[in-house]
Amino acid sequence: MRILLSSVGRRGYLVKYFKEALDPGDEVWGADSNKHAPAFQYCDNRALMPKVTEPHYIDQLIRLCQKNRIDMVVPLIDPELEVLAARHQQFDDLGIMAVVSPPQTVQITYDKYLTYQFGKENDIPVPETVTTIPPAKKLLAEGRLSWPLVVKPRNGSASADITYCKNEKQLQYAFENCPNPMIQKYLPGQEYGYDIFSDKNYRPISVFCKLKLAMRAGETDQAVSTDNPRLIKLGLEIAQKIRLFGPMDVDVIMDNGVPKLLEMNPRFGGGYPCSHFAGAKFPAKLISLCKNETLTPDINSCRAGIYMLKQDEIITPCQKSLDAIQNWR
Amino acid sequence: MRILLSSVGRRGYLVKYFKEALDPGDEVWGADSNKHAPAFQYCDNRALMPKVTEPHYIDQLIRLCQKNRIDMVVPLIDPELEVLAARHQQFDDLGIMAVVSPPQTVQITYDKYLTYQFGKENDIPVPETVTTIPPAKKLLAEGRLSWPLVVKPRNGSASADITYCKNEKQLQYAFENCPNPMIQKYLPGQEYGYDIFSDKNYRPISVFCKLKLAMRAGETDQAVSTDNPRLIKLGLEIAQKIRLFGPMDVDVIMDNGVPKLLEMNPRFGGGYPCSHFAGAKFPAKLISLCKNETLTPDINSCRAGIYMLKQDEIITPCQKSLDAIQNWR
Repeated sequence: MRILLSSVGRRGYLVKYFKEALDPGDEVWGADSNKHAPAFQYCDNRALMPKVTEPHYIDQLIRLCQKNRIDMVVPLIDPELEVLAARHQQFDDLGIMAVVSPPQTVQITYDKYLTYQFGKENDIPVPETVTTIPPAKKLLAEGRLSWPLVVKPRNGSASADITYCKNEKQLQYAFENCPNPMIQKYLPGQEYGYDIFSDKNYRPISVFCKLKLAMRAGETDQAVSTDNPRLIKLGLEIAQKIRLFGPMDVDVIMDNGVPKLLEMNPRFGGGYPCSHFAGAKFPAKLISLCKNETLTPDINSCRAGIYMLKQDEIITPCQKSLDAIQNWR
Repeated sequence: MRILLSSVGRRGYLVKYFKEALDPGDEVWGADSNKHAPAFQYCDNRALMPKVTEPHYIDQLIRLCQKNRIDMVVPLIDPELEVLAARHQQFDDLGIMAVVSPPQTVQITYDKYLTYQFGKENDIPVPETVTTIPPAKKLLAEGRLSWPLVVKPRNGSASADITYCKNEKQLQYAFENCPNPMIQKYLPGQEYGYDIFSDKNYRPISVFCKLKLAMRAGETDQAVSTDNPRLIKLGLEIAQKIRLFGPMDVDVIMDNGVPKLLEMNPRFGGGYPCSHFAGAKFPAKLISLCKNETLTPDINSCRAGIYMLKQDEIITPCQKSLDAIQNWR
């Protein structure tokens, strides 16, 4: 079996997890648009790709997969999900398993206001959210919102362009200077992250959950797993209500004991290693699905108290090994 | 010999570098206020400390060193430098080598406007910088500044609270909402980082330099070393003009072929591993100084073309190992 992790970037640990789940002779390939992607150093083979946003990206990805008999493609960054979801059928037709959810799911999760609406429509608690200033003022007047308010881009990532506004002047400015903004209730509670997994029929298989202990560059840097039944129950509800295939990372924040949905990313999240150590084994599950095996759900199997801490691993590739990374066209 | 890396945090690689330079039987200890500091897992011994900002921090650090016969303390974060520099004599008197520069150096480097003034006074090129809006407007009118302008805290870190302002309204707002702000000319050029080293007599020993290829959370994430003579010359000039003991990380940015000084941090910087691979060996140099050996300067020894890429190393300590971290008082 050959697995391609695309936009592999810094995810050396995922390359390792897939290798551990594979049989001898199987291979993990990496693709990225940056030849300095550190995870390249762990891959059995590497392909330097155009940027995901280039018009012919998916055509080139398909050619790469076909020519090298790739069995499974696992996209690892958000911008790739949309284009891959739209062309999903082509991968299916070629017998390549593209680990991506349906376009509608990708759309809901890519836009945090659509995520909010998804929550509203499905009885999943969400923090009050609006997309313009007048309704925010109305909710403030009614006491349903209070300062500070959070202004963030509907499709932001890595915690970029998030502003905590203490008054109307700050709100006005932040709103004007934020790309595609929305205004959300600020919740000061503890933040939890899920790693959820569903099979090809969108059937929930796994719900793992962790308390975030520290964030860095918008990513979970330190976490400890939890088996809190209320959280696992909510995670299962989310999984049941969204058409998901493969892994999804979901963030919730505690509001007076009620976990509220903040955002969803239908791919491996940055905090996945915590769930992996708590027993999630998503790479092995994807390999099983690729072999057309049926998975047994393991909801409620998340072990509590497993710590994950990240630190810098330093890699120093030689020029020759960087030059050897094949420019794919 | 026993070396204590204080505020050791995520610096597992530094623990390794010191261990490699030490003799068998020597020890690297770690101190941090967070028992989840991932680098603890690499240390021979660990001490959970109060926060650096606590009033009795240095007293406790001294007791920790005395009781455990620590020979050298290496502080790794900026807030620790000031308090350690002020009490430097106490460490000297106890025969403990505290790797910290004189208070005046710490003050100049902690405040980016003082860094600018240091550059001005010492013929080191710096980007035009002011601390209030009227002189910025004057320089704009004279054509010595142009949009965008950068507003940043004089003593910020991790790239926090930096705003790029395209017009007067944005400048006004950013200035009002930035803690202890200054206004700086925006330079779009390539950024380089130095790792400089001086001995106890403030004599320059090493000047290593790298091109920054990528930043993350305000830290050098990817870099490649350079032996560019102009850059090495400027690094040596900086080293000659500041009273430095031990390592210092310095950032410059290219402005039409002229490297201009942005900031200095008289401690191991986040991009140090690149210089280490290029031959810097600062841990071995500190160990030599601790043994009262004289160092031979190795200026112009920086090997070019050495890459450093960081990625996440995942650590999963068990609860028992976390509980075993000694709370020091």
